[in-house]
Amino acid sequence: MTPLESTLAAVAPADEQAMTAARELQDRLTKPAGSLGALEELSVRLAGLAGVCPPPLPEPAAIAVFAGDHGVHATGVTPWPQEVTAQMVANFVAGGAVVNALARQMGASIMVVDVGVGIPLHGGDTLLDANIRRGTRNLAVEPAMTQAEAEAALEVGISVAAALVEGGAKCLVTGDMGIANTTPAAALIAAFTGATPAAVTGRGTGIDDDTYARKVDVVTQALDLHRPDPAQPLATLAAVGGLEHAALAGFILGAAARRVPVVVDGVIAASAALVAAAFAPDAVAAMVAGHRSAEPGATVALDHLGLTPLLDLGMRLGEGSGAVLALPIVSGAVRVLREVSTFDTAGVTEK
Amino acid sequence: MTPLESTLAAVAPADEQAMTAARELQDRLTKPAGSLGALEELSVRLAGLAGVCPPPLPEPAAIAVFAGDHGVHATGVTPWPQEVTAQMVANFVAGGAVVNALARQMGASIMVVDVGVGIPLHGGDTLLDANIRRGTRNLAVEPAMTQAEAEAALEVGISVAAALVEGGAKCLVTGDMGIANTTPAAALIAAFTGATPAAVTGRGTGIDDDTYARKVDVVTQALDLHRPDPAQPLATLAAVGGLEHAALAGFILGAAARRVPVVVDGVIAASAALVAAAFAPDAVAAMVAGHRSAEPGATVALDHLGLTPLLDLGMRLGEGSGAVLALPIVSGAVRVLREVSTFDTAGVTEK
Repeated sequence: MTPLESTLAAVAPADEQAMTAARELQDRLTKPAGSLGALEELSVRLAGLAGVCPPPLPEPAAIAVFAGDHGVHATGVTPWPQEVTAQMVANFVAGGAVVNALARQMGASIMVVDVGVGIPLHGGDTLLDANIRRGTRNLAVEPAMTQAEAEAALEVGISVAAALVEGGAKCLVTGDMGIANTTPAAALIAAFTGATPAAVTGRGTGIDDDTYARKVDVVTQALDLHRPDPAQPLATLAAVGGLEHAALAGFILGAAARRVPVVVDGVIAASAALVAAAFAPDAVAAMVAGHRSAEPGATVALDHLGLTPLLDLGMRLGEGSGAVLALPIVSGAVRVLREVSTFDTAGVTEK
Repeated sequence: MTPLESTLAAVAPADEQAMTAARELQDRLTKPAGSLGALEELSVRLAGLAGVCPPPLPEPAAIAVFAGDHGVHATGVTPWPQEVTAQMVANFVAGGAVVNALARQMGASIMVVDVGVGIPLHGGDTLLDANIRRGTRNLAVEPAMTQAEAEAALEVGISVAAALVEGGAKCLVTGDMGIANTTPAAALIAAFTGATPAAVTGRGTGIDDDTYARKVDVVTQALDLHRPDPAQPLATLAAVGGLEHAALAGFILGAAARRVPVVVDGVIAASAALVAAAFAPDAVAAMVAGHRSAEPGATVALDHLGLTPLLDLGMRLGEGSGAVLALPIVSGAVRVLREVSTFDTAGVTEK
């Protein structure tokens, strides 16, 4: 089997018995039943993923930031120059970006992965060179990648997930960087959910009305050209995706195969989560939606996956910044199951 | 001056210059302007409170859980027996409650304060005996407290805030415990916002329709009896409040006087925040709304204060559990201002 095939074969459904045990335990803890809202549901899902109640504490967490460039940049979908992708990779490696500051706050590590940046990079120990090609082709006029390139990028994500889990990570976090990458994300979300280009295309870093109209046109043109079939995830990914989107899909599948939770960041990660779920529907059990990106496509994608985000702070940065902020909540949900006394043991009277 | 008077005299407006500096700094950081949403607004408010940009990291954080009992319990507003207040205090002291588990996750300390529990307690080092009286009177038929009792409870909160800040806390978190305490919270919120009893009364720990109807009647009866004047915060607090509500109001005022952020938890804390703001409107600058409680009165109170909660997880436990979950977000907002590179220093091209 290929790495992709063996990963897909390892993805299995949540453990119903562990979920039932978690629900029953929540009802015996010293608090009114249901009073922790979404934290209780999250604890049940994490028990189901781990196959045991209580599940292990999801620490330490490891973020992987996958970076790539995009041929569609040539169509003018963003005011930011393409070289900003490489400049931001250098910023991640130097520890100066938002995701670095937030990761330090949360005690999470960061690995930066060049899966498709347009120019050669010189990084330190925290930059992994896994470049598949120096940016995708322009999805508005031809497939963004060959299927072999898309599969290679998926395998980069799978191997990064494996390396981080083998290195001790108990929770993975998706990060991304790629100027123009909300355009392939919108195309993927439209392809997998059936939503219209206008419903899934957002203003990314903050574009004006003309650029926004052009971006919707580009997504529409790409869908008309490639007519992606959501039942063919590799072909769809290759036609309208990006190298970091592919790597993130592999990363999510790798987490699911190892039954480690993966906190999904914004619209790029949500589009990759759709790809992962199209390959292996049970992978959704490993996904925790970290936050609700201000990009409309993110919500369309999360709704399609049946996921409710933990945070809703109006963020739209990417990098993994929203997901890393949610990490203490994920840990907190598990802590409650592991550490809170029951009515019996604490000698507290029930109502 | 009394402790309350000197505290109120020390509460001052946010520093506009520091807020402007924070806004300008946010726009120079390596990210699209505005892309951190509520995190940016929070960083600006914290700079305004501290009077300096960037503000200090709000760590370590200290939670104070104020516990009290309520004469209104006799009217049948909750199915939980009153002794659960004391039992839960013992659970906090033993480290077995939800707020303990979440505080350990976030690296925050907890001080438990008996400001009005109905029976004598025997706690350890983490239980402060500051009992003003063994539970309030029944606000449905007489004032819950005398004004002297209410002021004494306010001063307990002020002194706890002072002790925690002098002990090194850079952020305070409100916690509460008191069976039946959502009833005085609803009455306070109605009194200070003008909302109807039905609009601010919730199902607390999860009560049935009959109990809910009785609870709304009790709040209505209390407001009809006392006709509280929101321009007279001490009289209003004494008539329809609770001892832990009063202590929390003092705690919030104490934080504001020392220009330390105070993360406000759920409906009890929100009602206390209204009391604090009625005493000193500028105290709102120190308040950070940690989460949106499922109790409807919490949202009415936060809207009145102009505060938007950081989290919305459907929680309704109290104890400080929602606020403590928000602590890493508060720290993260400051970290971004303190640690993220600017476009200039990182060599990243602007759009």
